[in-house]
Amino acid sequence: MCRIGGAMGATLWTNARVVTADGGIDRAPVAGALEVLTEGGRIVAVGRGLARAGVEVVDCGGRLLTPAPVDCHTHLVFGGDRAGEFERRLEGVPYAQIAREGGGIRASMRATRAMGVEDLVAASLPRLDHLLREGVSTVEVKSGYGLSIEAELNMLRAARALGRARAVRVVTTWLAAHALPPEYEGRAEAYIAEVAIAGLEAAVAEGLVDAVDAFCEGIAFTPAELAPLYDRARALGLPVKIHSEQLSHLGGTAFACGYGALSADHLEHATEADARAMAASGTVAVLLPGAFYALRETVLPPVEAFRAAGVPMALATDCNPGTSPLTSILLTMNMGATLFRMTVAECLLAVTAHAARALGLGNETGRIAPGLSADMVLWDVETPAQLVARIGFNPIHARIFKGEVA
Amino acid sequence: MCRIGGAMGATLWTNARVVTADGGIDRAPVAGALEVLTEGGRIVAVGRGLARAGVEVVDCGGRLLTPAPVDCHTHLVFGGDRAGEFERRLEGVPYAQIAREGGGIRASMRATRAMGVEDLVAASLPRLDHLLREGVSTVEVKSGYGLSIEAELNMLRAARALGRARAVRVVTTWLAAHALPPEYEGRAEAYIAEVAIAGLEAAVAEGLVDAVDAFCEGIAFTPAELAPLYDRARALGLPVKIHSEQLSHLGGTAFACGYGALSADHLEHATEADARAMAASGTVAVLLPGAFYALRETVLPPVEAFRAAGVPMALATDCNPGTSPLTSILLTMNMGATLFRMTVAECLLAVTAHAARALGLGNETGRIAPGLSADMVLWDVETPAQLVARIGFNPIHARIFKGEVA
Ligand SMILES: [Zn+2]
Ligand SMILES: [Zn+2]
Repeated sequence: MCRIGGAMGATLWTNARVVTADGGIDRAPVAGALEVLTEGGRIVAVGRGLARAGVEVVDCGGRLLTPAPVDCHTHLVFGGDRAGEFERRLEGVPYAQIAREGGGIRASMRATRAMGVEDLVAASLPRLDHLLREGVSTVEVKSGYGLSIEAELNMLRAARALGRARAVRVVTTWLAAHALPPEYEGRAEAYIAEVAIAGLEAAVAEGLVDAVDAFCEGIAFTPAELAPLYDRARALGLPVKIHSEQLSHLGGTAFACGYGALSADHLEHATEADARAMAASGTVAVLLPGAFYALRETVLPPVEAFRAAGVPMALATDCNPGTSPLTSILLTMNMGATLFRMTVAECLLAVTAHAARALGLGNETGRIAPGLSADMVLWDVETPAQLVARIGFNPIHARIFKGEVA
Repeated sequence: MCRIGGAMGATLWTNARVVTADGGIDRAPVAGALEVLTEGGRIVAVGRGLARAGVEVVDCGGRLLTPAPVDCHTHLVFGGDRAGEFERRLEGVPYAQIAREGGGIRASMRATRAMGVEDLVAASLPRLDHLLREGVSTVEVKSGYGLSIEAELNMLRAARALGRARAVRVVTTWLAAHALPPEYEGRAEAYIAEVAIAGLEAAVAEGLVDAVDAFCEGIAFTPAELAPLYDRARALGLPVKIHSEQLSHLGGTAFACGYGALSADHLEHATEADARAMAASGTVAVLLPGAFYALRETVLPPVEAFRAAGVPMALATDCNPGTSPLTSILLTMNMGATLFRMTVAECLLAVTAHAARALGLGNETGRIAPGLSADMVLWDVETPAQLVARIGFNPIHARIFKGEVA
């Protein structure tokens, strides 16, 4: 399948088992039950009897056709790696000692600060390419390892460059409020004002920011410390999101819902009240089983409460050097099912329609529906369950990005 | 790297960070510290200053060179899949109901029995190919879904055919004593005599069997029921192994050690006494974290007891349609570290030297040492930790099988 699906001409995708993610997910979609017509990089129609003169017809061979996955929470631009720490932890070195010796997020900060934009792009491309090999159309990339204005800007410049280097949609997030760098030890308020907010203004001026995020946790920032940053984001017209209730319940979810957050992420320690607040503000629950797995957590996110409150759930890799060095969206789905007991349908929606919505792109990608970008994947399987049940397997047949096999 | 490492000519692999797995594992192997000379598909020398006239020199660019992984426990030949059951379980359907409706291992049995050798090969090749994409040189394949003589023979015929279809070493295992088929309900002794033993003789006559295995568990067979089979294997000069102490402690490990078993596999409920018995009989502990993960087990195998007793630990995918639909040896290593707290060095030995030993191939593959088959992988990383720490990532640069890049 090398020369099909020209972006501009009209293409009719036939004989696929189509999962639109536009509404429910069929357990066993029927081959040929739906056709998809694309033109100019967009989905034009979904239905039957769409053939017309001048349309290139692609026989999908009975394969499964889904929206292309969206990875809505990553930290995939960074310098260095923390594999050495991983090794020492397994050999019994306590985390406190590793931190004392400059490990953890500060190690990533030093490595990231030491790199220019070009080096950051080169270091990050293999990670991005791995996601693309599983068909991902859209990747969110956060700053947050620079922790100085210039280094944070460089991370998002690298993210934008990644979006130009590959056929992929990159969405950027300003996450200067990820951790306190050593030079601001004990001065969170000053860091938020002088780096997180001042840097945000510079980043917005350069067109580098699609949303604003923060890490709300005992080891990071409190809602009170974050309020000036989120107020500024609102004044700038930028959507917000939050890392909240991962290791404890600090109230970040309710705080961010007050700003109409696109998403609240992690959420292992979220409550039913948080779920109701998220439902009210239309906030997506972004669950990150890679971090749960790598940290060997035991407290599960309140999936039942999200279901009951009608909160859409997304799943993402959380790709990062420390707590989730994960670059497989397929494995992320499997972990959502295996570890969080999400159903197959929930897992598939979680990396398509709901993940797109978590980025404010619910009407641009993540569903097979008229008007949306023609971002789809053909898989060598027949049912969604076959995509989710397997572990460490990639049955991709073709990745279609903006109507083109890429 | 398409035309290097001709199997027959002498090749000198230089400027690699070589991990021999012949003894310990260096945490940070130095590029160029060791060279590897191969000729006629074998490793001829490992050391320095090995250059001589007529030798093709390959500059490995400072990459990590390890023995090619060995997957020493798989059930990768089977018909159908059980993704539909996976889906229904997540929707809350109890396992008892699924079993009543003919699900579980019996579903795999029906699907496998319905297929001829050619169909089994076609169904299994994508799984094998996935392992090969991560550099695996050697794959063990068990029978055990046929549960009749002819269907069990067909599974091993398919396994042998897989070994001819790809550049890979396939090792076969007779596992008719995997489960009791419905036609033998309540007649385990008769099944062992009429199918497991009678079929074994037929399979041996056809050259299909490298070793004999059984599932020793409350839901399968007791040591007493298995004794006639293991006696017969011994009489035939075949090595044995066992699935033991996975869900409970039934004594299969000690039983198999009495036959000098190559390996005992799973072992979550094994004891210190089992570990000592394994050390005495030279039996490898094959740990299967994919099944542990998929079944959400909480009882860890006694890794510390294996260390204390000096039992070599291997890791394998256990690739199967139900409890471990896993086809990534890299993810298996990560699970060994993350879930079982094995060190990086232990994980790497576990899929190389120790896995080869679990197959009785410790002097044929799994180490970079003179006399062994030249089965190696070049990885785009610098340290073993970088191979083990990442999740859902494949940094392979080149797979070398019998001296040839394949
Ligand atoms: Zn994050
Ligand atoms: Zn097994």
